[in-house]
Order: sequence, then structure tokens, then C-alpha cells
Amino acid sequence: MSISTQAPTGFRDFFGDEAMLRHETIEKIRRVYESFGFTHLETPALERLEILQGSGGGENEKLIFKVLKRGDKLREELAKIAESNDAARDSEAAIAEYGLRFDLTVPLSRIVSEYRGEILFPFKACHIGPVWRAERAQKGRFREFIQADADIVGSKSWGADVEVIQAGVSAVYATGASGFILKINHRAWLRAALLKEGVSEARHLDFLIALDKKDKLDVGHVRKELEGISGKSLSLAMEKILAGDLTLREAETLDEASGHELSQVIQTLSQLGLPLEDIVFDPSLARGLGYYTGCIFELRHATEGFSFGGGGRYDQLIGRFSKESLPAVGFSIGFDRLMLLLSAQKKDGILKNNSLFMPLFNQELLPAVLKIAKRLREQSIQVDVFPEAAKLKNQFKFADARHYRWALIVGEDELKSGLLKLKDMRSGAEETLDELAVAGRIKSL
Amino acid sequence: MSISTQAPTGFRDFFGDEAMLRHETIEKIRRVYESFGFTHLETPALERLEILQGSGGGENEKLIFKVLKRGDKLREELAKIAESNDAARDSEAAIAEYGLRFDLTVPLSRIVSEYRGEILFPFKACHIGPVWRAERAQKGRFREFIQADADIVGSKSWGADVEVIQAGVSAVYATGASGFILKINHRAWLRAALLKEGVSEARHLDFLIALDKKDKLDVGHVRKELEGISGKSLSLAMEKILAGDLTLREAETLDEASGHELSQVIQTLSQLGLPLEDIVFDPSLARGLGYYTGCIFELRHATEGFSFGGGGRYDQLIGRFSKESLPAVGFSIGFDRLMLLLSAQKKDGILKNNSLFMPLFNQELLPAVLKIAKRLREQSIQVDVFPEAAKLKNQFKFADARHYRWALIVGEDELKSGLLKLKDMRSGAEETLDELAVAGRIKSL
Repeated sequence: MSISTQAPTGFRDFFGDEAMLRHETIEKIRRVYESFGFTHLETPALERLEILQGSGGGENEKLIFKVLKRGDKLREELAKIAESNDAARDSEAAIAEYGLRFDLTVPLSRIVSEYRGEILFPFKACHIGPVWRAERAQKGRFREFIQADADIVGSKSWGADVEVIQAGVSAVYATGASGFILKINHRAWLRAALLKEGVSEARHLDFLIALDKKDKLDVGHVRKELEGISGKSLSLAMEKILAGDLTLREAETLDEASGHELSQVIQTLSQLGLPLEDIVFDPSLARGLGYYTGCIFELRHATEGFSFGGGGRYDQLIGRFSKESLPAVGFSIGFDRLMLLLSAQKKDGILKNNSLFMPLFNQELLPAVLKIAKRLREQSIQVDVFPEAAKLKNQFKFADARHYRWALIVGEDELKSGLLKLKDMRSGAEETLDELAVAGRIKSL
Repeated sequence: MSISTQAPTGFRDFFGDEAMLRHETIEKIRRVYESFGFTHLETPALERLEILQGSGGGENEKLIFKVLKRGDKLREELAKIAESNDAARDSEAAIAEYGLRFDLTVPLSRIVSEYRGEILFPFKACHIGPVWRAERAQKGRFREFIQADADIVGSKSWGADVEVIQAGVSAVYATGASGFILKINHRAWLRAALLKEGVSEARHLDFLIALDKKDKLDVGHVRKELEGISGKSLSLAMEKILAGDLTLREAETLDEASGHELSQVIQTLSQLGLPLEDIVFDPSLARGLGYYTGCIFELRHATEGFSFGGGGRYDQLIGRFSKESLPAVGFSIGFDRLMLLLSAQKKDGILKNNSLFMPLFNQELLPAVLKIAKRLREQSIQVDVFPEAAKLKNQFKFADARHYRWALIVGEDELKSGLLKLKDMRSGAEETLDELAVAGRIKSL
């Protein structure tokens, strides 16, 4: 039987230049977060299902990859199903205990509750890692993807909102991507508008999720769905929200506190001189997660349209796990979409100037070649030794495909004389030099 | 109902200095691997169960976390179990499709088969990431842990064996850990010895797994188990192997080719002057994985005993997925055990010299403070702004606990005069300077 060696549907493999670029890009994001004083956070891939479910994760909660119980625990549950003669709806819950995390915010909230006594507040944490969602497979949508989050927990100040937005935006631009618009809105303000519209609190999230479809569906369709939820025609104010036509001043009349906070955040961000194309108050921006309570924001590309990151304030989420709640705000970068954008902005082949390729002329030379390579690495030169005495043509083909520019030639003659040859594989030029001079020469090039 | 906020059993949360140290240590390992020309590899957390099972993963295959099928697929299987009136042994197989990877070697082998036409050989890959095993929970044993592997695929040369060992050993020492012994053996040689002992090929792996217990159980117990497998008393040669008493020369008489290869690897490694305490031929080193075919090796701590890494040559594993096999050899660092060792070798508190803490005196100053922070970050200074105007005593307590040394004081007076105060929180000394001079001053300190 032949086994498929493809990655599971919606999952991906990365190697070579692409994998290297991914890693370098993650490190660029991390260094920006660190420059703001965010400290690292690392949490498990698996969480108890009770942590993941009912977290306000909205649609994401339906997309959890669940992990099977094991051993006796599992056998007991399977026996119960077999005895019951009925594959009850809750059998799924009985045979699974853990799930793969679908975001990094729920684990952060769990951690803050668990280690509340040890953590120093405000807790500024950066959390970068894969999350998993059993999405329907489609182009540009993956079941495993990386999020890069910066959160501040323990401060109600709008300064924290500005800092996470600034950190997120700076990190995205640090990767080399550009051309973004920041959209901002406020949940407390939206809440006031919805109450005024006569939408019951229980239906707020449904209303917001419907409103959020505005970018994908035509306005008529969205209006119909909204009216279905509110049970009547939209008011003039709601029509203006749907059209994105409401001004910040009009918004303030609906809820002064949140409107004022929103103004301050937008104004401060504008003054900071971020490289954004624009900072826009968008009264129809809803973000479909149940846990947001204050400012919400989204980073969209001016011409590509898609969202490349976003977040908001979630002052109640941590209260799910603790007696007291703690205010929190975070920005999450959609790393994989960013990588698609970066690879679309194609670059020239990477020529490795600070690296050396060492071909192997015959197997007996291996100990001597490995020793020279070791001494060069100790001087911070990257050295790639070809591990066997293959045809020289093939060895140089390898070096070329790996983008090496410099080859260090160490044959029997070179070892006898102590004079090695440094070859520029781009020009074909060779120079002869003492081993001790090699590292300095490479660094000077 | 109160929800437990602990990480699942055997899983861990990391934050603050510990998380930072973990990340820095991973990057040190990665940089050493890169200095040898290993390129990055990134593979999914989930693999098809058919890839993970029957991979020669030995005991690890019993420890797979399986992921439940979803939706209709799952409902059908559950209905079948309910109808069958019998929780058959294979129901577990029917309801799960994927599993979490238990090592990084099996995914690497899959990748090499899948992308054989695109990959340049020899394929030197470094692969760093978490793996999952449903181990019985006990001290120092985790269900999620990080492996850091370097592999060379596509070369039979013992030069590749030397390179992965050298890269692995150098990477471990680059983290700051020290005091290791490298043990080496060879599977082809062991195979010859086992055949001579009259152990049938089908029982070789059982015999090796029993031999591998030598470090944990007393010799008498191991001997009994070995004799149970071979069905007779151990020969004098096998007694010498069990006692670790056999010389390399005696080993060569059992299988000349592998014995000679082993000699060359040991000799070359010795000549390279690695920082190891010792390089030892250990005829009883077995490593319990089915897929090894050539050199096997293990990095043990001279005084702590434990294994901190190891690997070997696996020339047949890739053939499971492809028509042709490809020779391969790899070294895997047990990152989490290494972290335990590093934290035992305790360090002084990290004082952040190149970072600045900015307290906030009142909320109105926030825009001005954020602007100064942004300009300083643009000059590569890490700046941690306190996001709200809390009690100053608490703000400085925060700065102290986060190990900051320098505070930049920006109050109303400082903004008016344009002269800021730089405070050394260790000595209490203050100096007054222009904003433009701050970055230079910090860097000069």
C-alpha cells in the first residue's frame, strides 16, 4: 500500500529559502515587540476543552480540533456508546478531553488567572506561535497558522490600547510589508447604538457578526440580516453605521465616554507618525468575537483589502476564570497572510556574501577540511562543507543553488603548501591566501 | 462551576525571564546549525496516523495523541460503534485520522519523499519545534517538549555523521551548558553481533530495547531479559557488550566495514577538538528506535547522567514512503532537559543595561511620552512605557522587578525645558540631558 506523503489538508510544509524567510520574519516581529518591553509567553498547543469552549471565541469554537482520550478512559466511553445503541450527540464530548488552541488570547487569559500572584502587572506579553482551526479548506485559508500577539493585561488606560496598536503596526512594517490602513471602532459605543436600535443584549453578538459581513456581502443582504435580528427596519443612525458614514462627533453623542476614548486613541496614533496610509474611524467595524468590550481595530491593506491583523480590548474575558476580572487589550498579527503578501512583493535571489562553501575533493581530506571549517565557524563565518567527494560539477551546482558566492578550495596541494584558494563563484576569479587570512577576507568583502 | 486554569497534565506554561531564556537558547542552537549550512524546516503539528504508525518509532508510536475526526465523518463512525453493540478494538482507529507528531525525524522523512524532485541533495536541514508524547506524567518528563534536530539526507559518507554530531555538540555547548560525554556505537556492527548470538532478525529490536535498559536496571535483570529473547545463555562476547568492555578492535572483527567506519568517526571527532569531556565507544549503546541502520550516538552529562541529545544514521526510513530509499543521519537535542540543566546552573539576575523604563506622571503626558519612546526605539533602544499614571512607588517597583536599570523621567517641567532626566535606579544618581542625547548616552553606558 502506498502512503500519501502530502501534509494533511490545510497544513503546510516549509523548507529552504521560504522556511528561512518565515523564521527571519517572525524574529523581526519579536524584536519590535521586545523593543516595547513585551516579555515572552509560551503556552501549550493543547488546552482543556472547558477552557476553549464558552470563551467568547465565536465561530472559532466550532472549529476546534479535539484530541481523543486515551487508554482505559477512552475504552470506557466507547463501551458506553456501544451499549447505548445510540450515537448520542454528547458522545463527542465524552471521548475528547483536550483541544488544540484556536487563538492565543484564551490561553493568555488562562495564564493570567493561574499565575495572578506571580505576575507583575501591567503584564506586557508577546505570544507567537501556531494556532489550529478546522476551517473548510480554501485558497489562502489554512488549518494551522501562526499568530503573533502583543497584549497588555492589567491597565484600563487608553495608553495601553495605543501601545499594542503601535507595537503591532510597527512589527508589521518591520517585516518589509507596507501600504496598510488602520480601522478603529469601539464596542461600548456600538453597544449603546444597538440598545438604542432596540436590539436585545442577547442578540448583540449576532447583530455584530452580521454587520461584520459588510466587506464580503452586498449591503442589501446585510441589511436584511440585520433587520431580521432587530425585528424592524433600520433606523437612520444604523443606516449611517452600515454605510460607514457616521462621524466621530456623531458617535460621541451616542456614548460620550467611549466616543471620547476613541478620539484620544485616534488622535494620539495620528500624532505618533506611524507609517500607515490612513487611520480611519469605521463605525461598522464589528470584529465577530464575543469577548471584546472596548476599542477594536483592524489592519487592512489599502489595495489588497484583506485584514493582516487586529485586536481589541477585552476587559471581561479573564473574569471567566477568576473571581475578579482584569482589563486587557491586545493586537494579533496574522503571520501567514503577511507571508503571502511578502512573497508577492518578490525579491532578488539572496546571495550569501558572508558564507563559505567548501567542496570535498576526496574522502581522505575530510578530517582536514572539517578542521578548517570548524576554525572558520569559530570566527563567525557560516561554512557549508559538502559531506562526500561527489562529482565536482554536482558539488558546485549545489553551491550555486544554495546561493553561495565564495568557495574555499582545499585540495592536497593546498594542504601541503598551507595556501588555500578562495574562489568567487560569480566571477570565477580566484585568490590564494593563508588559512588565517580567510575569515578576515570574507568579512571584508 | 469553577474551571481549572492549570495547563493540562504534563504540559507547561512559560512567561517572564524563563520564557525569554528559552527563546534565546533556541536561537543559540539555531545559529550554530545555520553556521554549518543547515537550512530551516517547518512541518505541521499533525500528521496522518498512517505516517506516524509503523515508522520504526518504537515505544513512541504507542504514545501518540490522536485527533478526532470531525462532522459527518465522525458521526458515521460513532453510529457504527453504537450499532455494533461492541466497542471493538479498532473503533479508536476509525474515529481518529491524524495524530500529533512524536518526533521530527518521521516528518522529515515524509517531506524528503514528497518534495524529492525539488530538494537539493545533500539536504542539510535544521528542524526545531515541539513534539508530543502521551507519557505517564512524572518529574522531568513532559508530554509536550521541544526537539532541535540537524539532519543530512542524501549522503552515505561518514563525513555527514561527523557533521551532525559536531553541529549538535557545538549547539549544546553554545547554550552555555557543559560537561558532556559522547557515546558512540554502530547498528550494523550490533546487527552482526546479534546474528552471531543466534538472535533472529525479527527479535533484534526487542533485544536492543532490552539492552538499552542497562542504564536504568541492574545487569542481572537485563541479562535475564536478553536471555529470554535469545533463548539461551549469553555468549562471552555478548557479556562483554553488556558490560561495555569490548574494545573497538574486537568490534571490528565482528563486522569490519562498520567497525572501520566507527573508528574513523571517533578518530575524526577526537581530532576536531570539541569541548567534550570524552568520546567513548560504548558497545552496549542501543537506542531503542527501529529505524537506525548505522552509527548511533548519545550525548550524556558526565555527572548528571541523563541523555541530552543523540541520534544516528537511518538509511531505510525514507524508503517507507518512496520507491528508492535515501541515506540519512541526524542529531536531536532534547531542549527541555537542557533547559533544566541550564536553570540548575543558576545565573545572577539579568540587569538590562540597554533598556529604558519610562514612568508616567499623569495621563495627559501620554502622547508626549509615547512620541519620545517611539523616537528612542527608532535608535534601537528598548523602551518600556508604563501605560497609566499609577502610584510612582508602584511604577518603580515594576521597573525594578523587570530588572531595568535606567529610567527616563519626562514630567511637565522636563517637557517645558526640553531637558529630560536619566536616572540610574541602582545608584539613585540622576543626570539631565537633551532628548537627542539620550540614545547615545544609553549605548555608551
